[in-house]
Amino acid sequence: MAVTIELHKTVTASNDADAQALREELAHRGILLVNLMSSPGSGKTTLLSRTITDLPETSIAVLEADIDSDVDAQRIEALGAKALQLHTDGMCHVDAGMTAQGMAALGKAGCDIVFLENVGNLICPAEFDTGAHKNVMLLSVPEGDDKPLKYPLMFQKSDALVITKMDALSYFNFDLEAAKRRAMHLNPDIRIFCVSARTGEGMDAWEEWLLSCMN
Amino acid sequence: MAVTIELHKTVTASNDADAQALREELAHRGILLVNLMSSPGSGKTTLLSRTITDLPETSIAVLEADIDSDVDAQRIEALGAKALQLHTDGMCHVDAGMTAQGMAALGKAGCDIVFLENVGNLICPAEFDTGAHKNVMLLSVPEGDDKPLKYPLMFQKSDALVITKMDALSYFNFDLEAAKRRAMHLNPDIRIFCVSARTGEGMDAWEEWLLSCMN
Repeated sequence: MAVTIELHKTVTASNDADAQALREELAHRGILLVNLMSSPGSGKTTLLSRTITDLPETSIAVLEADIDSDVDAQRIEALGAKALQLHTDGMCHVDAGMTAQGMAALGKAGCDIVFLENVGNLICPAEFDTGAHKNVMLLSVPEGDDKPLKYPLMFQKSDALVITKMDALSYFNFDLEAAKRRAMHLNPDIRIFCVSARTGEGMDAWEEWLLSCMN
Repeated sequence: MAVTIELHKTVTASNDADAQALREELAHRGILLVNLMSSPGSGKTTLLSRTITDLPETSIAVLEADIDSDVDAQRIEALGAKALQLHTDGMCHVDAGMTAQGMAALGKAGCDIVFLENVGNLICPAEFDTGAHKNVMLLSVPEGDDKPLKYPLMFQKSDALVITKMDALSYFNFDLEAAKRRAMHLNPDIRIFCVSARTGEGMDAWEEWLLSCMN
């Protein structure tokens, strides 16, 4: 049973200011906060698990936001990393106030990177600044290459796009170049990584970028 | 270019009453309205395409709700079926008033079944009665068998669960019996169909159930 925090709804009127304050506080403490967003089942926890295993020198903690259950926090804890399960009281996204509650529950112990694994949802999380230094979205190969056309805001708000489950590329009718072109049309500055957390393909470029964000 | 309707936001205070009124009106006109919900990329349009092809005697129309693009309506129209693209003005779900706008745009031409393909989202659509006679959710094999644990409301609100992309079962670490057991724990009355729209596996049972709902 992972430690689970029941989040309280926060006033969103001041969300942008709250987010900026949290971002500055964490930078001051030397913590990189990364907000991970995607559809349900795109492989956020699997990407994190492999990243934690690949980077033993980096102290990583994870805030797992879900409506219910603690299965993701348990998976991260099984790797020996610090994880907290956040329950969102039915909410479809995480805002800055909720993220601050999670950071407070993590305590003052130092760590290099905190991942906020947002609620699985390709729409609502893009509308709320969580206070993260970097916004990263995942798109898994089985979901299809048309997602940038249907969910443009998420692609526009993300610093990086991680295309996951690349080992399944030959099985699904996914046009990788079309997906990249559509994402870059929405967001010319987006960094794109193509990975398989199962085989390890592409993990090095993703992890190199992540470490470069710490500086 | 498919015909696209820009939906207006509706007053949600009366949503339940609006939904009931729409449901009764459509029943009176002999139209079965089916609300299809799932994560992005679970295969809603592919399931519909195969269903339309398999049931040439049944007159089927589709309301395709998305934040942007008309790619799904174009896919349905290419099969010769009637399709309208609904744009939700950024909204993460469809409610009864929006569905009524779509039905009005379809016009008075008779059809046996209208599918409302809801916005790809495993959370918010479950909270709004659209006026449908049946709520159907999809869970694709690549998403994982833990989804009932994380998104319980969607499973509770659905009359049927269609587990899609069954042809990929051997490739992914998906425990079919665990997924079924978790869904039935939340909703003992839920009907479960396991299909692959690619190979046709299981489509007959799904289509038989659908036709039985018309009576």
